[in-house]
Amino acid sequence: MSLKLPPSLMLIFYVVLSLCSIYAVSGYKDVDDPAIRTMEEFSGYPFDETHSNTQSLSVDAENLQKQIDELATFSDTPAPSVTRVLYTEKDVIARRYIKNIMGLAGLSVREDAVGNIFGRWEGYEPDLAPVASGSHIDAIPYSGKYDGVVGVLGAIEAINVLRRSGFKPKRSLEIIMFTSEEPTRFGISCLGSRLMAGSEMLLKALETTVDNQNISFIDAARSAGYAQEENDLRSVFLKKGSYAAFVELHIEQGPLLEEEGISVGIVTAIAAPASIKVDFKGGGGHAGAVLMPHRNDAGLAAAELALAVEKHVFDSGSIDTVGTVGILDLHPRAINSIPSKSHLEIDTRDIDEERRNKVIEKIHESAVSIAKKRGVRLAEFNIINQDPPALSDVSIIEAMKSASKELNLTHKLMISRAYHDSLFMARVSPMGMIFIPCFKGYSHRPEEFSLIEDISNGVKVLALTLAQLSLK
Amino acid sequence: MSLKLPPSLMLIFYVVLSLCSIYAVSGYKDVDDPAIRTMEEFSGYPFDETHSNTQSLSVDAENLQKQIDELATFSDTPAPSVTRVLYTEKDVIARRYIKNIMGLAGLSVREDAVGNIFGRWEGYEPDLAPVASGSHIDAIPYSGKYDGVVGVLGAIEAINVLRRSGFKPKRSLEIIMFTSEEPTRFGISCLGSRLMAGSEMLLKALETTVDNQNISFIDAARSAGYAQEENDLRSVFLKKGSYAAFVELHIEQGPLLEEEGISVGIVTAIAAPASIKVDFKGGGGHAGAVLMPHRNDAGLAAAELALAVEKHVFDSGSIDTVGTVGILDLHPRAINSIPSKSHLEIDTRDIDEERRNKVIEKIHESAVSIAKKRGVRLAEFNIINQDPPALSDVSIIEAMKSASKELNLTHKLMISRAYHDSLFMARVSPMGMIFIPCFKGYSHRPEEFSLIEDISNGVKVLALTLAQLSLK
Repeated sequence: MSLKLPPSLMLIFYVVLSLCSIYAVSGYKDVDDPAIRTMEEFSGYPFDETHSNTQSLSVDAENLQKQIDELATFSDTPAPSVTRVLYTEKDVIARRYIKNIMGLAGLSVREDAVGNIFGRWEGYEPDLAPVASGSHIDAIPYSGKYDGVVGVLGAIEAINVLRRSGFKPKRSLEIIMFTSEEPTRFGISCLGSRLMAGSEMLLKALETTVDNQNISFIDAARSAGYAQEENDLRSVFLKKGSYAAFVELHIEQGPLLEEEGISVGIVTAIAAPASIKVDFKGGGGHAGAVLMPHRNDAGLAAAELALAVEKHVFDSGSIDTVGTVGILDLHPRAINSIPSKSHLEIDTRDIDEERRNKVIEKIHESAVSIAKKRGVRLAEFNIINQDPPALSDVSIIEAMKSASKELNLTHKLMISRAYHDSLFMARVSPMGMIFIPCFKGYSHRPEEFSLIEDISNGVKVLALTLAQLSLK
Repeated sequence: MSLKLPPSLMLIFYVVLSLCSIYAVSGYKDVDDPAIRTMEEFSGYPFDETHSNTQSLSVDAENLQKQIDELATFSDTPAPSVTRVLYTEKDVIARRYIKNIMGLAGLSVREDAVGNIFGRWEGYEPDLAPVASGSHIDAIPYSGKYDGVVGVLGAIEAINVLRRSGFKPKRSLEIIMFTSEEPTRFGISCLGSRLMAGSEMLLKALETTVDNQNISFIDAARSAGYAQEENDLRSVFLKKGSYAAFVELHIEQGPLLEEEGISVGIVTAIAAPASIKVDFKGGGGHAGAVLMPHRNDAGLAAAELALAVEKHVFDSGSIDTVGTVGILDLHPRAINSIPSKSHLEIDTRDIDEERRNKVIEKIHESAVSIAKKRGVRLAEFNIINQDPPALSDVSIIEAMKSASKELNLTHKLMISRAYHDSLFMARVSPMGMIFIPCFKGYSHRPEEFSLIEDISNGVKVLALTLAQLSLK
C-alpha cells in the first residue's frame, strides 16, 4: 500500500488491517507484514482470550446479543415470539431504548414527523452528504427478534467498532431506525422510508388511513408523540442525494447462506413487491337452513382465490416468483353461519416486475370469474402497492466485496426476495445491502435465529464498508 | 260439540272458538253457531277496529313487536345487526329483561346453574308433568332479532293470550329461555338444553372449556351470577318425563313457507347436525424469502379443505345434505407471512344421520390427504358433536295441526334443517315445533325478518297447542 495516501485514508487501512489481525491464527496472508499493527496495538484494547475467532475483538458481541435480547422483551406476545406494532406502548418503549443506545454510542439523535430516528456521527467534512445505515425494529405478530433489529443495533455497534478503532469519518455517518417497515398496523409496508423517498401517494393516503380499530394514522402517530403539527408529514421527504450512500445490514430470511456455509451475502437487487386487498360479498345465511344450491358463499370464493394465487405463481414458471395469502378473514365468522363477506390480503413479488404484474393480472381475472361463478360480488380488488425492484449501487457493491475480502470472510452476490427500507432509500441514495445467515432461513416466526458470530461478521463488514464510503 | 265434556275441556273449546271468532268476517264455517261467544263477549276486551284479521284480538301484536325491538337493542354491534353472546354484559341485561316480562305475565321465575330461565304458570293439577315451550335469545355476531327471540317472547305472549281468554291450565305451563343455543362463545351449541338432556360428555367438557380469550366457562358463568357452587352443573340435568310435552315456536330460517304463502310449518323432524374443528400446522416463514417449492402453507391447506367440504356434500347427491365452513383463521395473519397455522370449524347436517356421517368420513380423508400433499401436519380433527336427528311426537303434531285448522290457518308438515333446543328437549320430553315464515328465509344476518302478523299467527297456534296439551 502507498504511503502517499492522506492520513484519513491511512486510518481506514489501519481499521481494515487491525480488524483483519485476528485472522493471523487462521493464516491470513498479510499478517506477517511489519506495516500491520494488531488491534490491541492500535486501540490499546487488551486481547481477550475467551473471544473466539469469529467474535472479533472489535465487536462487543456479548453486549450486542444482550441488546438484541433486551429489545425482544418489548413485545405484546410471550417469548420466544415478538410482536411490536407501530406506535403501540411497546413500540414507544423500544424506540426510547434505541435512542438511548444511540446516545451511548455518542450519536446526536433526532426524529422526524413520523418517528424515523436518526443518530449522527459528525464527520470532519460535515457539509458533505452523509453515509447512512439502518433498518427497522417493528415486528409482525408472533415473529422473531432478528429481522430488522440486527440492522439497527448492529449498525450502532458498527459505529462503536469504528470509534474503538480510532477511525474518524470524513462524511458524517448516520444510523437510521425506520418507522413501520412492516405493514402490520396500517397495511402500509416501509411507511417511514417510503415517505422519506417522497411518495406523494402515501402522503395523501396517510390523511385517511385507519387501523382495524378505526384509529387514524395521524391520531396514532400523535399518541406516540409524532405528527404534532398539522400537515407536517411532508417534512419527512428527503431530497435525492441527501445521502452519499445507504447500506442496510439484515438477516437473509432465506436458507442459502446457511446451506452453503457462506458468511456474507452482498445484495445486487431487491425483488419487486406488490400487495392486493380483495373483498367478496355473498348471501350469508344459516348453515343448516340454506340448501347448497341457494348459497353464495363468500368464504369459498376466498378459498378458491387463495388457491388460484398459488396456481398463477407456479404457472409463471419462474422460481423467483412468489405469492402468498397471509390474511383471509370471514364474516360473521360463526360455525353455523354461511360467510357473507370475505377479505383477503395477497402479497406477490418477483425480481422481474413485468412477470409479477402478469401474475397480478391473472389473480384479478380469477377473482372476477370466481365471483361470477359463485354469484358473489367482487366488492374490492385494490392493488395497495406495486413497487419496482431496486438495484444496488455498483460502487457500494465493490465496497462491501472488498470489506468481506479484507476480513477474509466468504461472500456471495445474491438477490433480496424480501424487501426492505433499502428498496425505498434507493430512490434518494445509492444503496447496498449486507445479508448474514439465519437458521434454516426462518423469519417472521419465533424460531428466527442468527448466530452472534454471524451477526458480528456482518457488523464488521458494515463497519468497514461505512468507513470506506465515508472517505469517498 | 258435546256438553258432557268436563268444564276444563269446555274452556279450551271457548278458547278455540273465541280465537276463531275473528274469522267471522272471512266466513269461518261455525261462526253462525249460537253456541259460539265472540272474544269480546268472552274476555270483555273491546274489539279494536284498527286490528287486521291476522292481528288477533287476543295477541297484543304491538306490544310483542315492541318487546322484540327492545330486546334487539341489547347488542354488541350496531342495528340492524344483533350480537348477543353468552354471559356478556348485553346477555345479562337481556336475561333481566326476559325475567321481567315473565313476571309481568304472572309467571313464577327460576333459573338453573347455567342460566336456563323457567317461568311457570301453575296448573290446577300441579303434580302432573308440566307442558313447556321456549327457545333462546342469544345471537351470533351480526345476526338478526327474530331467531330464538320469537320463541321466547312469543311463548310468553301465548301465556298472556290464554290468560286473557280466561283459560286455566290443568298441567302447569312453563316457558323456558335456554342458555346459549348458539355456539358462539364456547363452540358448544344448545349448551343449556343439551345439559338439561343430561349429557355427561358436556358436563365433563364444561370443566375445561374456555373461550377464545381463555376465559373458562365456569368463570364466565359465575361472572353472570350462575354456577355459584362447585360442581353444581349436574343439577341442570332433567329426568326423562320431566315435561309432558315441549313445543318450540321459531322462524323457519328457510324460504319455503314464504314462497308457498303458508302460515304455519309443523315440524316432523329436526336434521342431525355435526360440527368439526380442524387445525393444520405448517412451516410459516417470510412471504418474500421462502420460495414456493419450500413452502408448507397451512392456509392453503385450509382453503383446499373448505372446498373439499363443499365437494363431498354435493357428491352425497342429496339436497338435504349441507356443509359449511363458517370459521377459517390463519396465523400469524400478516400479509407478508406464510400462514404457519390454520383453524377451521365445519358444520354439516342431514336428515339422514348415516349419510351425514359418510360426508364427515370423506372430509376427514381429504384433511389427511391434503396435509400429506402439502407437508403440513393435521394437528387436530375433532368432531365436537355428532347428534342424532329428532322426530316430533305424533300427538303433539296432531295438536299443532288441529290448532292450525281451528284458527283457519294454512299449514304444512316440514323438516327443520336448522337445529334447535327442541333437538335436545326431545331426549327428555315429547317434542314438537311450530315454524312461521321469514323474509326470503334469511337468518343469522341483519336482514332476518318476520311479519308481526305471521308471528301473531304462530303465537295463536302455540297458545292453542299448549292449552290442548295442558289438558291431556
